[in-house]
Amino acid sequence: MGTLRILGIDPGLRHMGWGVIDAEGSRLRYVASGTVDPPQKGAMAQRLLALAGGLEDVIGRYGPSSAGVEETFVNEGARSALQLGQARGVCLMVLASSGLVIGEYAATVVKKSVVGTGRADKRQVQAMIRHLLPQAAPDSADAADALAVAICHASHAQTGARVQA
Amino acid sequence: MGTLRILGIDPGLRHMGWGVIDAEGSRLRYVASGTVDPPQKGAMAQRLLALAGGLEDVIGRYGPSSAGVEETFVNEGARSALQLGQARGVCLMVLASSGLVIGEYAATVVKKSVVGTGRADKRQVQAMIRHLLPQAAPDSADAADALAVAICHASHAQTGARVQA
Repeated sequence: MGTLRILGIDPGLRHMGWGVIDAEGSRLRYVASGTVDPPQKGAMAQRLLALAGGLEDVIGRYGPSSAGVEETFVNEGARSALQLGQARGVCLMVLASSGLVIGEYAATVVKKSVVGTGRADKRQVQAMIRHLLPQAAPDSADAADALAVAICHASHAQTGARVQA
Repeated sequence: MGTLRILGIDPGLRHMGWGVIDAEGSRLRYVASGTVDPPQKGAMAQRLLALAGGLEDVIGRYGPSSAGVEETFVNEGARSALQLGQARGVCLMVLASSGLVIGEYAATVVKKSVVGTGRADKRQVQAMIRHLLPQAAPDSADAADALAVAICHASHAQTGARVQA
């Protein structure tokens, strides 16, 4: 089994977390992580374009072949959901347009995959990230979440479950 | 004042209506209209990619310099809003990435601009489209809505109101 370079994404309009890891069987290696912060003011189309550009830069720099995206949990009003959907739609489109294999995972699935239970809290997730990827130094909570999605995708992608074309 | 080629968009994940008109002062001319229907099944990222590809085709074929997009009215749950947001985000991003000047208009603004009142019903809007663009033959209600947005954008773009960079 070769090495799979995986990009994890925690989508958002204000902050999009990303994390790149290499997976070879159950061995994981941290590559990089960060946050794309598009301008918070100005026309929505330009903010989305900045988001897409930031994601394209990450893909161009690290060349992942596969991506895991956190399924967004919407507990606020329809207006927030529409905004979040816009950011998420742009992320998915850029990933597909770059030819990446994409898996989408609910937050509970990510937690279960990383910690062992879907009810894990943020601290437990962060502790497991430090354990699994000791070299990781995520610069934001969104980047840490993105690394968790990447770890989740690594285990699912290699068993072939839940991965979409 | 030169001729302005305007693309109107009624965004949607299942059906995206589009309409192209030429505006020279208050004179309008119908150019084309249609509907992009991405696959309704399969991975969301691929559906969004098909939507983006359809919109890029229209832009490439007709070369508009300016676009009006209907602001989506969300009266359903957060889940529908998220889905609609994904389609809308992809549309805005493709328009911005093609360098078009973009204006966003609420449905009531579109109706007021086309018919004269924000409370106009669909039939009144369609009658005014036939009046203003006698050669128009929209192939769907979404395409007709998109032409209405294009007409609205024509009047706003030429007075400079509500147009975003």
